[in-house]
Amino acid sequence: MATIVLYSMNRTAQTTARLCFFPYSTRASIVDSRISFFHNTSVRRLTPLPGARWVPKATGVRTRRSALLFAGAAAAVLGFVASASHFQRAEMATMITKTEETEISEKCKKFMSPPCTDVKVLEQKKEEMCTRMEMLIMETQAEFCRALEEVDGGKFKVDKWERKEGGGGISCVLQDGKVFEKAGVNVSVVFGNLTEEAAKQMRSRGKVLRGKDGILPFCAMGVSSVIHPKNPHIPTVHFNYRYFEIEEEDGTKQWWFGGGTDLTPTYVNKEDGAHFHNSLKEACEKHHPKYYPDFKKWCDRYFYIRHRGETRGIGGIFFDDLDSPSQEEAFSFVRSCAQTVVPCYLPIVYKHLDDPFSPEEKDWQQVRRGRYVEFNLVYDRGVKFGLATPGSRIESILMSLPLTAKWEYMHEPPKGSQEADTLEVLRNPKEWV
Amino acid sequence: MATIVLYSMNRTAQTTARLCFFPYSTRASIVDSRISFFHNTSVRRLTPLPGARWVPKATGVRTRRSALLFAGAAAAVLGFVASASHFQRAEMATMITKTEETEISEKCKKFMSPPCTDVKVLEQKKEEMCTRMEMLIMETQAEFCRALEEVDGGKFKVDKWERKEGGGGISCVLQDGKVFEKAGVNVSVVFGNLTEEAAKQMRSRGKVLRGKDGILPFCAMGVSSVIHPKNPHIPTVHFNYRYFEIEEEDGTKQWWFGGGTDLTPTYVNKEDGAHFHNSLKEACEKHHPKYYPDFKKWCDRYFYIRHRGETRGIGGIFFDDLDSPSQEEAFSFVRSCAQTVVPCYLPIVYKHLDDPFSPEEKDWQQVRRGRYVEFNLVYDRGVKFGLATPGSRIESILMSLPLTAKWEYMHEPPKGSQEADTLEVLRNPKEWV
Repeated sequence: MATIVLYSMNRTAQTTARLCFFPYSTRASIVDSRISFFHNTSVRRLTPLPGARWVPKATGVRTRRSALLFAGAAAAVLGFVASASHFQRAEMATMITKTEETEISEKCKKFMSPPCTDVKVLEQKKEEMCTRMEMLIMETQAEFCRALEEVDGGKFKVDKWERKEGGGGISCVLQDGKVFEKAGVNVSVVFGNLTEEAAKQMRSRGKVLRGKDGILPFCAMGVSSVIHPKNPHIPTVHFNYRYFEIEEEDGTKQWWFGGGTDLTPTYVNKEDGAHFHNSLKEACEKHHPKYYPDFKKWCDRYFYIRHRGETRGIGGIFFDDLDSPSQEEAFSFVRSCAQTVVPCYLPIVYKHLDDPFSPEEKDWQQVRRGRYVEFNLVYDRGVKFGLATPGSRIESILMSLPLTAKWEYMHEPPKGSQEADTLEVLRNPKEWV
Repeated sequence: MATIVLYSMNRTAQTTARLCFFPYSTRASIVDSRISFFHNTSVRRLTPLPGARWVPKATGVRTRRSALLFAGAAAAVLGFVASASHFQRAEMATMITKTEETEISEKCKKFMSPPCTDVKVLEQKKEEMCTRMEMLIMETQAEFCRALEEVDGGKFKVDKWERKEGGGGISCVLQDGKVFEKAGVNVSVVFGNLTEEAAKQMRSRGKVLRGKDGILPFCAMGVSSVIHPKNPHIPTVHFNYRYFEIEEEDGTKQWWFGGGTDLTPTYVNKEDGAHFHNSLKEACEKHHPKYYPDFKKWCDRYFYIRHRGETRGIGGIFFDDLDSPSQEEAFSFVRSCAQTVVPCYLPIVYKHLDDPFSPEEKDWQQVRRGRYVEFNLVYDRGVKFGLATPGSRIESILMSLPLTAKWEYMHEPPKGSQEADTLEVLRNPKEWV
């Protein structure tokens, strides 16, 4: 596997790093083909609803307005009908399938752990979206963990766990390292039946999904990560990419993708913010010109600590309910995002690695960590869904919480201070690119 | 004002301390008259529903099965009809009113701050329950703060605040003291209209209350406190006593009391647990023999961190929806509970004041503090209600959070350790008396 040679704020260098960092040499051509495909077709066919749901227009994909939050509304997988661009679709699918034929078992050797699903099953079903997504989240976990290990010098503790109700996961945690106070990168592949309480956490807009006898068989998988560094000048990063399938009363399968990457600095740094957002924008623009502006706004709205009147951090992108323009294209977008995690974040880590900091700055970091805890426990839908899902692995869900946090009564930084400047940005989200 | 001379585990001494500590010399006679009154009448008339709602039986008080959680179901204030025991009621009311005539303005001078309601208004309406409850919560705040200041040596910071939607509060916080890491004692007297979101946090069982055009005018007041000591051998204590009035569509006023006192040790100590629970049991038994056992169970159920499968601490008492056997008697019970806070807790503080502790013990305290945060942000109905109520003072609601907390991934104390013993008790609540 190639290692990262250069982390700089230079964009050309980043792109190079991203492409060569990915453990599979064939990746570059996939990226290229995807770029041209989406620039030629999908852009024209999409009708984005700014900051709301993404529905295809005249693509022939059967969609429903039923909206589920956390992982959104869905279009019917089984109702997939060839559209005017089906030749292009077929062509792309062939290319991707071919590349993905690279032995699944070979790829698995480079993961942090054997995958949740048996390798033989993955090989048998290698063309199914569940398999391709499981491979992507495992790759993303490995890529990110190796990059963090390299900068920290420590090693991730890897826990493979099973969920007795179905599925399992792989939790990688690096705690009390040289650079990172707590770094968690989690993969989970969960299936079973949705309880009413769990379903309640998911539906938020639109119509309710009906299950057979009130039961909704589902499959959910994703990679999620929160990295809390020690140095208050290195920001916290979070990302999560997920795929959801749910079966309705009549056997129809609904599917959708969701995800996002966002940054939470203790001290806002304009250059870091611009680099982070620019990286995400580049990844988005390969797929649709409205993705970045819409998903950036969605991110600011989602990571909002209402009772404090401030955002958790400086945002990034966030999307849910992504069931268009096709399963293939949605997956391709999610893959671009997942591959942008390392080049988004690692250059910022390296840049501030040796920044000196005072006890007061550390204290402000702890106060901001408290706000992070508030958001995650009070508002985060992923956490709520996890806590309400029987058989969830609590330690994996709550590994997003920082090692340490602080709640000082009536903490308000003095006017004109760096802390006050940061609060100002959190209270009035800004444009970074 | 008399000061506490002796804090010991000796019960006779505690009772003496409680009576002479209360800043009003007339208090002892009130307590005495209440004790005899309740022993003679209310006990016989109550039909307790173990661990559930408390409804009067054949008292003539019009009740409704409509249940609101947080502050529970209610009986109609305006529908008060004289019962068979109305002579006794009248006699008691006279005694209490007489004692409470002791200048309200004089009493107010001893509070931590002028009360939320103008003293003149309080004097004009001195017989109304809202006034009597406001005086009780102010007294409780003052009594507890003075006792904590005495042991800590520090002074409470007092913030009187107003809520633009109606009402306000007094927040007293002692942060980073010698003994206490963070001690908060909060009084709030809030009125206005309930939003649908806030109402949602309140109703949980039984029928929904209907408001005029969906709006429910309400008045809520209470005293609440969380004390986080520095020494891991001194437990955290929490108490909250509250009164609620809400006006329905037809003008009917519903009222109820709620409250409780509970202990959260870092290390379970049998003697402390027995003292704490015994003190509460004594207070309860002045009013009804079923109060302690029922409210103890309710407490264990309420302070349960479901996703961890453990209680927050070793409990105490918790009750809600208390609208029987009469407003007078319910208030009297709440007063007994409020007066038990100091003798419940302070002897335990003094006992462990100089206990030595190791960094590992401090660490375990920080992990338990993390669980405290989890409970408060994920499950606590008071916090949820506060965060959802527009114009709430967030710093007062979240002052229950510890100054510092920790989340260690997969923390599990070794078998046979003191930490494991504590977890065992939290996983299997025990009887203490």
